[in-house]
Amino acid sequence: MAIVRGTANSVILWFMVRNAALLTDLYELTMMQGYHHYGMHHHAVFDMFFRRQPFGGGFSVFAGLDDLLETLESLRFSEDDIDYLRTLGLFDDAFLGYLRDFRFTGDVWAVPEGTLVFPQEPLIRVHTTILEAQLIESLLLNTVNFQTLIATKTARIYLASEGGAIAEFGLRRAQGVDGAMSASRAAYIGGASSTSNTLAGKRFGIPVTGTMAHSWVMAFPSEREAFEHYADLYPDKAILLIDTYDTLGSGIENAIAVGKRLQTQGKRLGVRLDSGDIQYLSKQVRGRLDDAGLTDALIAVSNELDEQIIHQLVSADSPVDLWGVGTQLVTGGGDPALTGVYKLAAKERSPDGVFVPTMKVSDNPEKSTNPGVKQVWRFFGSNDYPIADLITLDDTPPAGAGAGSDQAQPIRFYHPSGDYRKFTLESWTRSEPLLKKQMEGGRIVAERPDLETIRRRTLRNLECLDETYTRIINPHIYKVSVSKPLRRLKQEFLARYLADDENGE
Amino acid sequence: MAIVRGTANSVILWFMVRNAALLTDLYELTMMQGYHHYGMHHHAVFDMFFRRQPFGGGFSVFAGLDDLLETLESLRFSEDDIDYLRTLGLFDDAFLGYLRDFRFTGDVWAVPEGTLVFPQEPLIRVHTTILEAQLIESLLLNTVNFQTLIATKTARIYLASEGGAIAEFGLRRAQGVDGAMSASRAAYIGGASSTSNTLAGKRFGIPVTGTMAHSWVMAFPSEREAFEHYADLYPDKAILLIDTYDTLGSGIENAIAVGKRLQTQGKRLGVRLDSGDIQYLSKQVRGRLDDAGLTDALIAVSNELDEQIIHQLVSADSPVDLWGVGTQLVTGGGDPALTGVYKLAAKERSPDGVFVPTMKVSDNPEKSTNPGVKQVWRFFGSNDYPIADLITLDDTPPAGAGAGSDQAQPIRFYHPSGDYRKFTLESWTRSEPLLKKQMEGGRIVAERPDLETIRRRTLRNLECLDETYTRIINPHIYKVSVSKPLRRLKQEFLARYLADDENGE
Repeated sequence: MAIVRGTANSVILWFMVRNAALLTDLYELTMMQGYHHYGMHHHAVFDMFFRRQPFGGGFSVFAGLDDLLETLESLRFSEDDIDYLRTLGLFDDAFLGYLRDFRFTGDVWAVPEGTLVFPQEPLIRVHTTILEAQLIESLLLNTVNFQTLIATKTARIYLASEGGAIAEFGLRRAQGVDGAMSASRAAYIGGASSTSNTLAGKRFGIPVTGTMAHSWVMAFPSEREAFEHYADLYPDKAILLIDTYDTLGSGIENAIAVGKRLQTQGKRLGVRLDSGDIQYLSKQVRGRLDDAGLTDALIAVSNELDEQIIHQLVSADSPVDLWGVGTQLVTGGGDPALTGVYKLAAKERSPDGVFVPTMKVSDNPEKSTNPGVKQVWRFFGSNDYPIADLITLDDTPPAGAGAGSDQAQPIRFYHPSGDYRKFTLESWTRSEPLLKKQMEGGRIVAERPDLETIRRRTLRNLECLDETYTRIINPHIYKVSVSKPLRRLKQEFLARYLADDENGE
Repeated sequence: MAIVRGTANSVILWFMVRNAALLTDLYELTMMQGYHHYGMHHHAVFDMFFRRQPFGGGFSVFAGLDDLLETLESLRFSEDDIDYLRTLGLFDDAFLGYLRDFRFTGDVWAVPEGTLVFPQEPLIRVHTTILEAQLIESLLLNTVNFQTLIATKTARIYLASEGGAIAEFGLRRAQGVDGAMSASRAAYIGGASSTSNTLAGKRFGIPVTGTMAHSWVMAFPSEREAFEHYADLYPDKAILLIDTYDTLGSGIENAIAVGKRLQTQGKRLGVRLDSGDIQYLSKQVRGRLDDAGLTDALIAVSNELDEQIIHQLVSADSPVDLWGVGTQLVTGGGDPALTGVYKLAAKERSPDGVFVPTMKVSDNPEKSTNPGVKQVWRFFGSNDYPIADLITLDDTPPAGAGAGSDQAQPIRFYHPSGDYRKFTLESWTRSEPLLKKQMEGGRIVAERPDLETIRRRTLRNLECLDETYTRIINPHIYKVSVSKPLRRLKQEFLARYLADDENGE
């Protein structure tokens, strides 16, 4: 159980470690008992993917993997858990005995955190017994859906601010304790600069920031005294909240008086706006500060911001230095869940152990799955920007894939759900398989980058994606296609399905 | 630390107990150090309230209190927390010493969980030193905002189903671990019958339910075998998922075959629909089941349901017995945060210790606070249904309040933000103060009802609120007013504010 690392908070991890096994939907356990009872301990391959970009955007930022792997590595049922399950009257002793000794022993392939990802692409591939694969479904989706959602939301906010400083202020409006903690982590991955959540600062090593509340200003006989006292105590961090009484009256006047004193000490004033029209007020305040000779004073803003509002403010040249974003960032606002799913892609055939592709055929083509054990290849152009992704069968990589540009061959792409749309990628310089082995036999085998490294990776990836794809509103759709062998396999499944149907099966 | 009770899971509680103190916004700590440094250990009174009903609804269901109180009772900073804070370079040894010995010692008044609540009403009133009151702000709002949101969402879903069985299926789409756990608790308070989250079942004693996944059906050579094997193992819980291949073809046919066999054993079939048009399919499936003599077979449905969709399905007489609701229920859908706030209402004056009301005046009247130490009185009519609520100063209850109907006197109500709207409540039978003392000197003093009791209270309250207020769409607005003395106090503050302004202060 030596799982504490870095500035990690052992207590939260301990909770994950000791209890995550029961954090599963009941039907996973009843299905597991079924497989156990019928001796179906065969291996299976499951894919996690999502079908629709959140927020009407053009990309998502994959996040949550490290928390997931750490939890899987130490997944256990306690005696207490077993006792509880026995009380349900659904499980027999043989199965409860199996759970008592349960360990996750699978292999996990996944794209690294901070990778930009697109609909239909397998992001996590789990190879293990069907029992284990089933147990972890709810946990896997819970972890990765939420963190990917929030990393993506934050990246959109970061882009809207044109690389500004984003302070995550969401603790009080987050969906529970972990809604706050995991959001702080994911927000940092997505481009936030800091969090107000002190526990997240401690656990993840994220820089913590804050200003002051209206209650501070109201706790003193006057606004001026409240500001003076704060600046005396925190001369290096004096971001004064100026809207308690009258922003453009007493608020800015008192702040400027304090700011001039700070200036004589070589310190820098900051002010915060938390209400009213930010565009108008920030310009007025900037003018007043500059007129007073406080040209280096910071302006921080907050109050129900999101990427649309920030985009508008930046487009209108609002002089904002720090964006405090809460509710919308930590909940995803009107789009509060990534629609990630976890689907069977292949199963081991007895007695020969060959992996046989499986496919769920849906009347809605978007909902049919891609069969087989798959890889995702990303192709890059001459400026080393990604051009398109190709979902392939793992054992048939695209010709020339992975090699240098001198080997690059034209590659045929097929639309993953409509089978009539296609195009040929004539020219590319390099390609890269996105799914990497993260876990083998239940042990983490990949390197585990720290949060700072993951954040830098996200920012580099955002920089290198053509801005038509990262546009906040109505972005261009990045091409994700299936390879010819995968397309052929899907067509075989569909043909068989139609034949069954016509034969009245 | 003897805090484990009932079927509670000690590990999660242990996390809350040991770490909640640092789960706070950094500015709370910097403000606390300020109060500490300037010797401002005076007491203050803070109110938690919200300004807008979520979901365009007419009521909210208060939830989260017991988790909050339990956490407050055992709030501590660990040595590890102190060490972390020291690394920030913001805090001096005197203040860190104060934190090392920190205990929450305040009094807390709150409305009981399961109470129907309305905008502007104080729902929690905290009396303690300004340091303690400030520390707990983020934690209090995080806990109560989220659980109240989800209890309210669930109550709306429950009402839309006309008292049907609601199974909470949200784990995989919830916002993190606690986004799932707290949602399961709050959903049960709001009227859900069960959860799929096994850990929530264990921790809170909520009934757990589940059916089967598409992967179960696909794991067998045929759908029929998948159904037969499941029914053999769980003859009392055989809810078969019939949409993997062809709902009205093989799906219902195979389910009926299994159902007939179950019928001979005296068991009852269930089927689940997870895709397609639920209204059409549920009627078709009901007809097929009835024609086969399986009139007692259950129909469960799922697939991105919310109260609007359920309301439509119920209005169209869709024959549904069990509603599986996930994403929308556990996240609140498009309205993912209750806008609860926590505002200073009064502060102790030195040296005489008198509590002096405080008020935040905003240019937006809806955002001005109600000053002073307050109580909320609910007035009931002849059928014992609530008619209206009155926010009063705690030391001036309405005349005759609390007494029987023979004492009832007409009471003047004033609109809480617009000062021109008013009405007189001529006739009422009884009244009740909603805020009850929950905690005294940092110890819980109120009775702590179990979750089942709280859920029954919610359902009774929903039954006794006129349906014009509980309507899903465009409800009537329940009257919440302020008493004459409170109105007079607000007017004094506003007059003083205007005078200051005119004097150019």
